[in-house]
Amino acid sequence: MKERAHGRIIGAIVVGLAAASLMATPARSAELPQKFVHHVYFWLKQPDDASDRARLIDGLRKLAAVKTIRSHHIGIPAATDREVIDRSYAVSWMLTFDSKADQDAYQVDPIHLRFVDQCSPLWARVVVYDSEAIE
Amino acid sequence: MKERAHGRIIGAIVVGLAAASLMATPARSAELPQKFVHHVYFWLKQPDDASDRARLIDGLRKLAAVKTIRSHHIGIPAATDREVIDRSYAVSWMLTFDSKADQDAYQVDPIHLRFVDQCSPLWARVVVYDSEAIE
Repeated sequence: MKERAHGRIIGAIVVGLAAASLMATPARSAELPQKFVHHVYFWLKQPDDASDRARLIDGLRKLAAVKTIRSHHIGIPAATDREVIDRSYAVSWMLTFDSKADQDAYQVDPIHLRFVDQCSPLWARVVVYDSEAIE
Repeated sequence: MKERAHGRIIGAIVVGLAAASLMATPARSAELPQKFVHHVYFWLKQPDDASDRARLIDGLRKLAAVKTIRSHHIGIPAATDREVIDRSYAVSWMLTFDSKADQDAYQVDPIHLRFVDQCSPLWARVVVYDSEAIE
């Protein structure tokens, strides 16, 4: 029993070390593991209406449930301000997918269709940039 | 010895299971842990010159060494093509940072200044979108 307990303690320590190394903050930038980045910028019909922006953000939070999305980021223009920066949009919606096929599936997902149906009356303009990682 | 070996085997199995669960593909989208997304789109002076594009991409690969960058994605326009999609740019450079302060540090990092110095003659236009996650 004593030796078995000893083995278990060693096992627990090894698990702890393995978990810590897997979860550790990387020291340098990592290449994004997902190949496909889908980035949408929304301009609202009523950009100064906080409740319209809140409704759009609420819609995006629900949209994040689409299963092929690997990660999402809902943002608003940062405080940075230089000549090359476009900060005229209201909301940024950045998604990563493993592949173009997964992004194509997202476009026709019922959750996405419902989002467009419910939220498109809010926006005046949408610009999309789809980028695939270089090999 | 037999019991100790048994303990080690159990330990190894537990490590394997722990590692597998940590590395497993998530079933649903995860919110990007980084708060700040910095996305740059480059238009080249000579968009049809493959060597100019390769030089820019090579420069971006070196730029990824800046320590405050948490993840990066170098992309080119995907094959998707709808009215709302802008696919006129040559190269997409998407970075995530933990904070605005980390992005600000990147802007003045010597590696970034060297990149601008060496690669800016290649581009005709740059558009930047900086987005901070909503709370």
